[in-house]
Amino acid sequence: MRLALALVHYPVLDRSGETVTTAITNLDLHDMARSARTYGAERLFVVHPVAAQRALAERIREHWVEGSGKRRIPDRAVALDVLSVVSSLEEAYGALSSEGREGVEIWTTAAASRGLPVTSYAATRARLAQATRPVLILFGTGWGLAPELIADADVRIEPIRAAASAGYNHLSVRAACAITLDRLLGERTAG
Amino acid sequence: MRLALALVHYPVLDRSGETVTTAITNLDLHDMARSARTYGAERLFVVHPVAAQRALAERIREHWVEGSGKRRIPDRAVALDVLSVVSSLEEAYGALSSEGREGVEIWTTAAASRGLPVTSYAATRARLAQATRPVLILFGTGWGLAPELIADADVRIEPIRAAASAGYNHLSVRAACAITLDRLLGERTAG
Repeated sequence: MRLALALVHYPVLDRSGETVTTAITNLDLHDMARSARTYGAERLFVVHPVAAQRALAERIREHWVEGSGKRRIPDRAVALDVLSVVSSLEEAYGALSSEGREGVEIWTTAAASRGLPVTSYAATRARLAQATRPVLILFGTGWGLAPELIADADVRIEPIRAAASAGYNHLSVRAACAITLDRLLGERTAG
Repeated sequence: MRLALALVHYPVLDRSGETVTTAITNLDLHDMARSARTYGAERLFVVHPVAAQRALAERIREHWVEGSGKRRIPDRAVALDVLSVVSSLEEAYGALSSEGREGVEIWTTAAASRGLPVTSYAATRARLAQATRPVLILFGTGWGLAPELIADADVRIEPIRAAASAGYNHLSVRAACAITLDRLLGERTAG
């Protein structure tokens, strides 16, 4: 298994459904890097088309991996070392496979399926264990991944839901990433 | 089932193992409130002994539940309405049961079991479904809950782990809360 994650800042939706570019949130990088490392994902690509925003993400990474942050909390260096800051998803595909998009399985996560067929977590867990190509799971910031990313995916993972709906389903991207990794790669103990 | 969560800022450990009081982190309240609402927890108690820190948490709550935050993102009002800011765990027990501590099941989460017996997630999921008293799950900030809280618990939930250890296990409290709720109350679909 080779698994990587991508935190997508463009193209994503805003709350009115328009395609926008979102700003980088410091805690997204920390939380998703820590979750990635805990579950064995090899990379967390931070995808941002704006150079100044990429520089911010690089500064956060350097502070924790090489700077004073590392001396204060060495564990955090191990986590943030999984960050790769890239300008586009194509750049992430290229980093994972010399064949680019064709060499990578793209999986999407979304709070709603928008009518497209989805794959259950049980099936994706089995598929991940047997994947021959590297798998890249996309997580959207803002109000979620743009429709063209979801349409282009090899696997659209089913929305995360509670067993008994509480009538509310608005997890943060940090929480959704943690739950997705746990459903795909978490320990399953007997009662 | 009656389930509530507590985000504990005292007594918790710092990285040298000393008992300390931590500061409130804005995104903890947002993420854990959203996760709580998604999975049907009735309350998220923010436990802090310092009045100025409680006032900060109340201001965050009011901004989103009653103020301009609600007009901008109405969904967030629904989530942050689960917040109750209290000065101690005893106050949380009293809010859940007229019998106080005796009327509540206290469950703890921790990254390491410290040698005390723990209960598997499979067993806690079944126990939660059948609980007659309200269940309060404690989450520690900083480097985790103080030992006396773990020793006093009715149930110590096993540490969250990946199926294949990646040699790193340092989830954020926001991620650990999301995974815990999903393991206890998440939808389980067949393959």
